[in-house]
Amino acid sequence: MAIVTILGAGRMGTAITWPLRDNGHEVRLVGTHLDAEIIRSCLDARYHPGLRRRIPDGVQPLYLEQLPQALDGADVIVSGVNSLGVHWIGRTLAPLLWPGASILSLTKGVEAGDDGVLRILPDVLAGELPAVLRSQVTVAAVAGPVLAYELSGRRISATVFTGTDEAELRRLRGIFHNDYYRVWLSTDPVGVEVFAALKNAYTIGIGSAWGMLEAAGGPDQINAAMHNTAALLFAASSRELAQTVKIMGGRAEGFIGLQGAGDLYVTCTGGRTFRLGWLMGKGLTHSQAQAEMREDTLEGAFAVLQMARTLPVWEAEGRIGPDDLPMLRAIIRAITTDTPLALPWDDLMGVGKVMV
Amino acid sequence: MAIVTILGAGRMGTAITWPLRDNGHEVRLVGTHLDAEIIRSCLDARYHPGLRRRIPDGVQPLYLEQLPQALDGADVIVSGVNSLGVHWIGRTLAPLLWPGASILSLTKGVEAGDDGVLRILPDVLAGELPAVLRSQVTVAAVAGPVLAYELSGRRISATVFTGTDEAELRRLRGIFHNDYYRVWLSTDPVGVEVFAALKNAYTIGIGSAWGMLEAAGGPDQINAAMHNTAALLFAASSRELAQTVKIMGGRAEGFIGLQGAGDLYVTCTGGRTFRLGWLMGKGLTHSQAQAEMREDTLEGAFAVLQMARTLPVWEAEGRIGPDDLPMLRAIIRAITTDTPLALPWDDLMGVGKVMV
Repeated sequence: MAIVTILGAGRMGTAITWPLRDNGHEVRLVGTHLDAEIIRSCLDARYHPGLRRRIPDGVQPLYLEQLPQALDGADVIVSGVNSLGVHWIGRTLAPLLWPGASILSLTKGVEAGDDGVLRILPDVLAGELPAVLRSQVTVAAVAGPVLAYELSGRRISATVFTGTDEAELRRLRGIFHNDYYRVWLSTDPVGVEVFAALKNAYTIGIGSAWGMLEAAGGPDQINAAMHNTAALLFAASSRELAQTVKIMGGRAEGFIGLQGAGDLYVTCTGGRTFRLGWLMGKGLTHSQAQAEMREDTLEGAFAVLQMARTLPVWEAEGRIGPDDLPMLRAIIRAITTDTPLALPWDDLMGVGKVMV
Repeated sequence: MAIVTILGAGRMGTAITWPLRDNGHEVRLVGTHLDAEIIRSCLDARYHPGLRRRIPDGVQPLYLEQLPQALDGADVIVSGVNSLGVHWIGRTLAPLLWPGASILSLTKGVEAGDDGVLRILPDVLAGELPAVLRSQVTVAAVAGPVLAYELSGRRISATVFTGTDEAELRRLRGIFHNDYYRVWLSTDPVGVEVFAALKNAYTIGIGSAWGMLEAAGGPDQINAAMHNTAALLFAASSRELAQTVKIMGGRAEGFIGLQGAGDLYVTCTGGRTFRLGWLMGKGLTHSQAQAEMREDTLEGAFAVLQMARTLPVWEAEGRIGPDDLPMLRAIIRAITTDTPLALPWDDLMGVGKVMV
């Protein structure tokens, strides 16, 4: 039995308590300063208002003020905050960590600094730790397509734990893996995180096929839709994702698996980012689409904004040419200038390249 | 302007006349012995009963008896028959071909001979030609996700022409490519055809997630579905597809593009094979699912039956171990024994392998 302390009691941070408790571990669920009401509800009624489920028996809800005690003896510290909380959690944990501490981050993605340099979020988190501690603490990360609603419903799910310390990854897998939370490992955190982040951007482009169909009046008299168009966009996305991972020094062939194809596919079967793409395919600008959705689409746009800062740097460094990543550029342009999405069909599979 | 003679006036053979006529070519559409009524309708009313569309102006419908004249001066001969017609079309064309003739086959897939040796359909077609002619005729093939209804509706579509003669592929692209029929090229016909064939088999497995959800009573009280499960199955399929292509001597990395990921994705957004998988995921056997669908699901099952003959040969040759391709094996087992699909969850991402 392990002691697992989760910091961040949002949906995903809480959903992970299902396999942990089913596996018999001691689970301490610590809310951030934004989670006080959630923790109160969990304490008073064992009910998580975001997940709308009763939390598993034995999970110990704790307020942020109790973090020091919550970390006492923890075999794993799980970061359950979203992308915006990565700096905060690094700074919050920094004074409380010890040599040998192990962090597993549920926060996926990339962040471009003011310098336009793209970093994966586990590295951003580690960057907030004192240099002396950094080499004595492991930071692994979770990626891959797992919806919190489904994990907490014990639907069969698969995920990838990634990091550079293979032995530590295997230890973590031993704690979390079970029949419905199936953990694979990858020692390519760069690839895994870049796929995880950018699949949201590309889903906007792929979803746009459905919006284009709607704008064209829907299926025609013999019910011809735009599956062909969607397939083209999925293919172009696959190629650009693999290229981007390669530029970042990750393993492009990782696309052939859960962190790439599996995640991109399922993100394109529905959800907010897909819906955003659908609306933009109809001709709406990003702000118009946001207004129509009346819900948060931060995740998709966040990755786009990071890449908007990064591409000029990559170009200046000669890592890409002006014609590379045409689909990503089109999505960036649409969102940063708040203009309708204009896909460059001639360029989508590579400018002037006809060999695939 | 080129002269293009199409043999086979089914939906796909006819749909290709849209880009060809829009590109200004002379187009001769020759029916097989099964297509006589289609040709009559095209002659009498310019109407294709399968596509339910008026055929493009200028397309010349011809009966099979007129094939010799139809081939006169043809710059390209398009094979428009389905997988079952490949031997027939090879034998039919054999006495009528000439050195330098160019065949482009719309028929995708693989065929396992009685010996269990798997061959791609362009090679099967070429195998029906006299040996002396075989080296003097080029056989290229078309693959990638293009639905005939959509192509004939001028929806933006993308496809891959594949063959070993790059110059010939470029010539063909020059004839067919336009704004809505976007042609990429690949010199890996083995990879392209194996992806095209097996995506149908794997779609049965991926579609089963939706059936499993239905069998489990649908989304739960907070609307948790089984996207996580579908993503796992898509990922496992991706990996097995790439492995199979590699075993066949094709390029596994071709998965990252139209012939792999793009085609698999769109096949999983609907259609007969996906529906077959859905029903089998509910617990129905193949024959029960067929009875419920009351429509032809040959395509998906055809590839499965070919692989059922091939896997024992590959095992005997040591090309695969008994634990390789567990998802394909489960699908083969379900279909050949007409028993419910039983997915081997522990093996799906590779037996005992946790690194991805």
